[in-house]
Amino acid sequence: ESPRIVNSSTPQNGPLGKNGPSKGRDSGTESALLFEWLISPVSPQNFFDNLWEKKPLLVRRHKPQYFQGLFTTVEFNKILKENDVQYGKHLDVTTYTDGKRETHNPEGRAHAPVVWDYFNNGCSVRLLNPQTYSAKVWKLLSTLQEHFGSFCGANVYLTPGGTQGFAPHYDDIEAFILQLEGRKRWRLYSPRSDNEVLPRMSSENFTDEEIGVPILDTVLEEGDVLYFPRGYIHQATPPSDTHSLHLTVSTCQKNTWGDFMEKCLHGALQTAMEEDLNFRLSLPRDFLNFMGVVNSDLEEDRRTAFISKIGELFQKLASYAPIDVAADKVGMNLIHSSLPPVLTDEEMSCMVYTTNISFENGEFVSDANILSEETEIQLIRRGVLRLITQEDEIQVHHCVENSRVYHGKPCQFFVIPPESAPGVEFLIRQYPKFVRVDDLPLEGDLQGKEVELASLLFEKGLIRTRYPLHTDTEEER
Amino acid sequence: ESPRIVNSSTPQNGPLGKNGPSKGRDSGTESALLFEWLISPVSPQNFFDNLWEKKPLLVRRHKPQYFQGLFTTVEFNKILKENDVQYGKHLDVTTYTDGKRETHNPEGRAHAPVVWDYFNNGCSVRLLNPQTYSAKVWKLLSTLQEHFGSFCGANVYLTPGGTQGFAPHYDDIEAFILQLEGRKRWRLYSPRSDNEVLPRMSSENFTDEEIGVPILDTVLEEGDVLYFPRGYIHQATPPSDTHSLHLTVSTCQKNTWGDFMEKCLHGALQTAMEEDLNFRLSLPRDFLNFMGVVNSDLEEDRRTAFISKIGELFQKLASYAPIDVAADKVGMNLIHSSLPPVLTDEEMSCMVYTTNISFENGEFVSDANILSEETEIQLIRRGVLRLITQEDEIQVHHCVENSRVYHGKPCQFFVIPPESAPGVEFLIRQYPKFVRVDDLPLEGDLQGKEVELASLLFEKGLIRTRYPLHTDTEEER
Amino acid sequence: ESPRIVNSSTPQNGPLGKNGPSKGRDSGTESALLFEWLISPVSPQNFFDNLWEKKPLLVRRHKPQYFQGLFTTVEFNKILKENDVQYGKHLDVTTYTDGKRETHNPEGRAHAPVVWDYFNNGCSVRLLNPQTYSAKVWKLLSTLQEHFGSFCGANVYLTPGGTQGFAPHYDDIEAFILQLEGRKRWRLYSPRSDNEVLPRMSSENFTDEEIGVPILDTVLEEGDVLYFPRGYIHQATPPSDTHSLHLTVSTCQKNTWGDFMEKCLHGALQTAMEEDLNFRLSLPRDFLNFMGVVNSDLEEDRRTAFISKIGELFQKLASYAPIDVAADKVGMNLIHSSLPPVLTDEEMSCMVYTTNISFENGEFVSDANILSEETEIQLIRRGVLRLITQEDEIQVHHCVENSRVYHGKPCQFFVIPPESAPGVEFLIRQYPKFVRVDDLPLEGDLQGKEVELASLLFEKGLIRTRYPLHTDTEEER
Amino acid sequence: ESPRIVNSSTPQNGPLGKNGPSKGRDSGTESALLFEWLISPVSPQNFFDNLWEKKPLLVRRHKPQYFQGLFTTVEFNKILKENDVQYGKHLDVTTYTDGKRETHNPEGRAHAPVVWDYFNNGCSVRLLNPQTYSAKVWKLLSTLQEHFGSFCGANVYLTPGGTQGFAPHYDDIEAFILQLEGRKRWRLYSPRSDNEVLPRMSSENFTDEEIGVPILDTVLEEGDVLYFPRGYIHQATPPSDTHSLHLTVSTCQKNTWGDFMEKCLHGALQTAMEEDLNFRLSLPRDFLNFMGVVNSDLEEDRRTAFISKIGELFQKLASYAPIDVAADKVGMNLIHSSLPPVLTDEEMSCMVYTTNISFENGEFVSDANILSEETEIQLIRRGVLRLITQEDEIQVHHCVENSRVYHGKPCQFFVIPPESAPGVEFLIRQYPKFVRVDDLPLEGDLQGKEVELASLLFEKGLIRTRYPLHTDTEEER
Repeated sequence: ESPRIVNSSTPQNGPLGKNGPSKGRDSGTESALLFEWLISPVSPQNFFDNLWEKKPLLVRRHKPQYFQGLFTTVEFNKILKENDVQYGKHLDVTTYTDGKRETHNPEGRAHAPVVWDYFNNGCSVRLLNPQTYSAKVWKLLSTLQEHFGSFCGANVYLTPGGTQGFAPHYDDIEAFILQLEGRKRWRLYSPRSDNEVLPRMSSENFTDEEIGVPILDTVLEEGDVLYFPRGYIHQATPPSDTHSLHLTVSTCQKNTWGDFMEKCLHGALQTAMEEDLNFRLSLPRDFLNFMGVVNSDLEEDRRTAFISKIGELFQKLASYAPIDVAADKVGMNLIHSSLPPVLTDEEMSCMVYTTNISFENGEFVSDANILSEETEIQLIRRGVLRLITQEDEIQVHHCVENSRVYHGKPCQFFVIPPESAPGVEFLIRQYPKFVRVDDLPLEGDLQGKEVELASLLFEKGLIRTRYPLHTDTEEER
Repeated sequence: ESPRIVNSSTPQNGPLGKNGPSKGRDSGTESALLFEWLISPVSPQNFFDNLWEKKPLLVRRHKPQYFQGLFTTVEFNKILKENDVQYGKHLDVTTYTDGKRETHNPEGRAHAPVVWDYFNNGCSVRLLNPQTYSAKVWKLLSTLQEHFGSFCGANVYLTPGGTQGFAPHYDDIEAFILQLEGRKRWRLYSPRSDNEVLPRMSSENFTDEEIGVPILDTVLEEGDVLYFPRGYIHQATPPSDTHSLHLTVSTCQKNTWGDFMEKCLHGALQTAMEEDLNFRLSLPRDFLNFMGVVNSDLEEDRRTAFISKIGELFQKLASYAPIDVAADKVGMNLIHSSLPPVLTDEEMSCMVYTTNISFENGEFVSDANILSEETEIQLIRRGVLRLITQEDEIQVHHCVENSRVYHGKPCQFFVIPPESAPGVEFLIRQYPKFVRVDDLPLEGDLQGKEVELASLLFEKGLIRTRYPLHTDTEEER
Repeated sequence: ESPRIVNSSTPQNGPLGKNGPSKGRDSGTESALLFEWLISPVSPQNFFDNLWEKKPLLVRRHKPQYFQGLFTTVEFNKILKENDVQYGKHLDVTTYTDGKRETHNPEGRAHAPVVWDYFNNGCSVRLLNPQTYSAKVWKLLSTLQEHFGSFCGANVYLTPGGTQGFAPHYDDIEAFILQLEGRKRWRLYSPRSDNEVLPRMSSENFTDEEIGVPILDTVLEEGDVLYFPRGYIHQATPPSDTHSLHLTVSTCQKNTWGDFMEKCLHGALQTAMEEDLNFRLSLPRDFLNFMGVVNSDLEEDRRTAFISKIGELFQKLASYAPIDVAADKVGMNLIHSSLPPVLTDEEMSCMVYTTNISFENGEFVSDANILSEETEIQLIRRGVLRLITQEDEIQVHHCVENSRVYHGKPCQFFVIPPESAPGVEFLIRQYPKFVRVDDLPLEGDLQGKEVELASLLFEKGLIRTRYPLHTDTEEER
Repeated sequence: ESPRIVNSSTPQNGPLGKNGPSKGRDSGTESALLFEWLISPVSPQNFFDNLWEKKPLLVRRHKPQYFQGLFTTVEFNKILKENDVQYGKHLDVTTYTDGKRETHNPEGRAHAPVVWDYFNNGCSVRLLNPQTYSAKVWKLLSTLQEHFGSFCGANVYLTPGGTQGFAPHYDDIEAFILQLEGRKRWRLYSPRSDNEVLPRMSSENFTDEEIGVPILDTVLEEGDVLYFPRGYIHQATPPSDTHSLHLTVSTCQKNTWGDFMEKCLHGALQTAMEEDLNFRLSLPRDFLNFMGVVNSDLEEDRRTAFISKIGELFQKLASYAPIDVAADKVGMNLIHSSLPPVLTDEEMSCMVYTTNISFENGEFVSDANILSEETEIQLIRRGVLRLITQEDEIQVHHCVENSRVYHGKPCQFFVIPPESAPGVEFLIRQYPKFVRVDDLPLEGDLQGKEVELASLLFEKGLIRTRYPLHTDTEEER
């Protein structure tokens, strides 16, 4: 597919400076706006209808400041000086010279002077998961992820002029290249075969002979963005008169219908075997005489019948597929992989984090109003939690305590009684509306205990109140 | 289903005395005849059309000697004296009194006097896998298994008069009860629900209240046989004036279409993901908002579309199912679980086992003719081996070296070059015909090396020659 | 042993405010001074001669500000608000009421308002490893550890007035109690038996009946310090009119001669068996007839001889003990467990961390002087590294990259060529003197490569230069 | 050490034909006599005083029939035909040609014709653990083992004339070579160094250059026996005019004082740390500054003191060594590794195995007299059981149910109440005397329950009665 190239003359500024959704605005809307800004002036509808998973898109912005404030080489240096960045785990030093790709990582912590010595000597430097160190990148990914419904990751690439750090290859993710500093020449190549269209695994390194002729050969400038689907082979190198710094945002890794099917199959068969006698009948006593690879070119009615019987069973299987359970597994994995939300000061002032406490006469005294039946509450983000039913237990999985390090902590969840579940569902469905605590629809014995549920969610950091909790601020509104 | 009861007045004798197929007769035919004898006078066709997996069958033989020579209490005693039979592993001592099922196994070896002391005190004794000790039972099972195309196992039950050793329950296998000594009252009950028709797992122990009214209440006599499908609840007790000894032959455990599907599913999806783009597209970005157990009663077009898309993918999946590979897995498991074949003296004289060898002047001298191009050979049994293709390697899996202890040895196989495979397939397809060694259709460089392949199979004990290998015997024919 | 009680009238102030050793001063000296301050006015010599591992010491300071700045309840609150402190892992909520010890930890993050709610309701709060969050505590422990030659840990205990959080028990560590806020009544009891003097394991919880009469019953005031050896049972509760906040510093856990022996025994025997025929001779053929528990009261010459032979072998064994190898294992474990050193700004300015770098024209430009042959260098701390010989490889184990979380990272080390080892040893032995790079005594082919070794150690953060590396600062001295 | 060579002119015949100790004779005496026969005419005292673990011994018997009936090539052939002997696991096919040692094992079962084909083509054949198949070898080893107090194993070697199957090497066992058929030239070489005298591990294969000049170069004839201690290098080859068949009996593998120490050390230190304060004191705070490999050539008082302190602790350690517990571990391992005893018909008639039982009227009727208080009983062999105390439980470990395959079954034991232990000890100490059941000295509540203990031991096959249990046989005595 030939790439789409768009020249933008009047680009808009982005919402990057803000930390969270505007007051009262849906986090889903926020993330949609952020994505719109990312690919502007292309409209999201146009993008998802015509380009997404189909063909590359290059947006030439002619506005070098477009990504200003997101990430810089100077910030990179600061990160190295202040953090225990480890070679191999958080940072790679690489070269690609004369068709040979090499990694030059020593062991241990990557101290700034040593890393820049490599850089000055022609090595590319890749920082993995910059969101761990950069609040801006964290905010960008955390927001975009809500739009894609799939984990968003990122790498930063810093390359000296006239060098190349990586061999031609394709990846297993949808990629957005944000050119932050300098320029870089990109060459894209179409997938080499149908099997390599939207592949589930990244490729090995290719030689020039293996990849054919580029379908795009262009130089990205500051502020430009380049999108290409997984499977598109690429290589990139800055012109010799400038370095290049870019951020690659990735998403939709192993997020396919096939991956979803994988989560359905076992359960579908278990249920089918329990509920459908056809799956419990014995196999024909003699089928081993005509089935098997040795017999695969045998033409015989018994083979035909056997194969068509299997076909019937596959069709029946669909009706037993535990689709919603599988969706919850995907949802749970997404919650587990997610970055925690980036909270604004305003949000924090309505949450468990910043209740002012003073220690007086051996007691801690809070200046906060306690949650009451009239308090209005809201989930802190649309996708911040998911209800999962496992073995008759209702678990609330959430991402607010996740680490900024990918999978840096085990799955975070707590259990609630089934009678509370409608209350949590109500919060999910009403989002982004605020609801009164006493409107939570609890069931059975838990009716009347709405404040208890609200307090639990509040203490876990999952909800905010409409107004700040401090008495003084209270008066200000 | 009401059980079928058949009274036989002129029963035929069985082929039990023989050790293997008659010369030149197909082992498949032998096993069919043995099964015919087992359920005689009911015809196998009638049985498999109307009773198998459907309803119980009782054959009253009025011929106490019918199973004579198969297994006796005296042989049981001899087994205990001569073998290291271990409590719990090979033998169980049990009671079922006043609705309570108990196991009384001490630790260690089950010495005869101790076991019979339990028996004289009212305990039932179950011998697991009697085929390990009894050549007749080994022969019975080894032959039947070829007929069922599924592993056949057995247990022996010896029960004192007027007692019961086991609580009412159902099993996960097709059961044939062969009454060998004394008498036993059997009560059968229909499966309690559709889900318990042909179940994949055995039940726990039931109380009388849980099982309803028997559909069969009868006393088995020596020579009678009782069949019932898995899922039929049963309990049995000898009249107070006699002990009971019976053999339960079981088959078709986890041998269902569903089990077969299980072996297909993963491979089908792997292939589908590799070959079909539909499986590699990303999921809808927002599907987590309308799918999941919380949303299961949401009525929405997006849900309907999602579910119907999954249905389509299931249908597509069937065409990618690796049916023959799955059949080979089943075949390989069957080979691995199989009893080794019971060989006749005549067969042994034409095989690797009994070549006469004498030691003369520091050399071993064989009186056997060596395999030559003209030698006529035959697989020793139809089901004795299976060709399995694994990662471009052709493996010959076989059961001749298997232990009489269930899974007592690891999987036995050896590798042959692909060019030899047609030669082995030829032997399989031609069975029970004898073929000349030089008629084996080898390929490529191996043409002309037919004697080598034949020698390999001969040395592994997989083939026999038409005539005994000894010079002297040779002359006698 | 009756405890020593010391009343101090003119206490000195501590060195707590500083971050590291004074310029040019040995870190060993620094840590000795810190310890002197901790137990002042008792002299260290007096302490180690008469009290250490022998009896408790109470120092009444009458100077509430003595520990000022080390840790406060207000800092505790700030830690909870800013860090992902997890119940169970980092913080415990406990009570001890009516002889019953309970833990009240919920799951997940310990948010400040929830924790203080527990506190206001009478629960004690224990913060584990406060050094992870508090730079002052980190500094305290990191320095003391060099003095004890053994890992120093700490816990913070915050207890409401008139309550008790823990049952009477003894610990497996040497304990120093630093009273930071409020007051707390402490009762100490002597070890209950010889076996519980300096025990290797902590005790279970005791009842009052099990522990006898206290040997010390006193109220600690702000600024006081209480020391007691492992094995001394203790319980503590603040008077009802005040809360209590204290820091427990612990050291010498499993740091005994016996633990050291454990590291020697296996190697000693291996070597003895290799080098001494006495260990390789067969046992007496009949020894099983007179040795063994059944024969333990047999009086027989053969027994006596056997036992005395074993005695001889034990004596021989000592001479084969790999004492230095075992010492290195202890040293390696200490390095691995150690807190990283707390560095002063002055130190940082002479190390790899704060080299100023600017990014100009696509290149990183450093304003630092490069290490040269004349540069004077020094290990950053006496105990910052240890040379370990493992399988002919020389490993430099160090603690500069360790996590402030106990064992939060794997063992950090790198390998150097044997010819470099004398250079590193020289740096160890010369400490705290600065040495010129070209005075490093390298061997063999590495002679002349002193700058390389120095650069390696510099880039790992193990050495500092005498003067700051910046050109401008350079001029200022 | 120069080998001892003894020429025997009037050799006595051996006790090999018998199956067990003569009636009333100690199994220890039996095994001593068997060993005397093995090395006759050298006296056992002479052997153990002057040769054992010191130097080789060659006994030239000039009596080819001396080992008649023990094992023959013809029996070897029969074993292959009747048993599932597997290449690699039970049998090896090897060559040593032109200094190159090769193994030619195919996979799977070793069928006789294939094995002899290898032999006829110049390969050596080694049968591992012939005791599994040969009752005579089983008997030989089972008896010798009681004499050595250490596991006895064996291999059979069959070598074609003029070939060699193995490279020069030494073993980790005491070896007795029994020449059964043909002749074989043996060359023995002294251990190459002090470290290789009585080594704990076998050597790799040597070249001729590495082994020096033989200290013995002789041809073994049928009936001869050759002994050499572990560490003596050897190679052997039959003259070209004859094959050779010999049996190697091995013993005392890892049965040394050092191995015994290994079982003591950990327990000694545990106890020392519990009971001796010296082991629980902390290490010197500064020892890491003067100990460690880096400091190993430091001359300093602190080092000297530290090392001498360790020496003292080693001496103290001896007194805490759990010598009897270690002896029981050795005893338990020996029991676990032991071959089961070979029982005579006479013994069987007085044991649980051959009680005659008939099945009459649904009951098992025994013709045996039941054990009563007057019955006289005896352990079936001196070393058949061992009492082991583990965690306050008294276990009777025994070898009667062991497999003839080495470690073919898990450790066999059962638990008895402590009050029964004196009864079992009494049986051990009184052996080989018969004792009356009511003389068993039970304790506490178990007094008066002597028949119960005797019945338990009887049912486990550990004791025999003085007279056969059958009524009829009873009369015959």
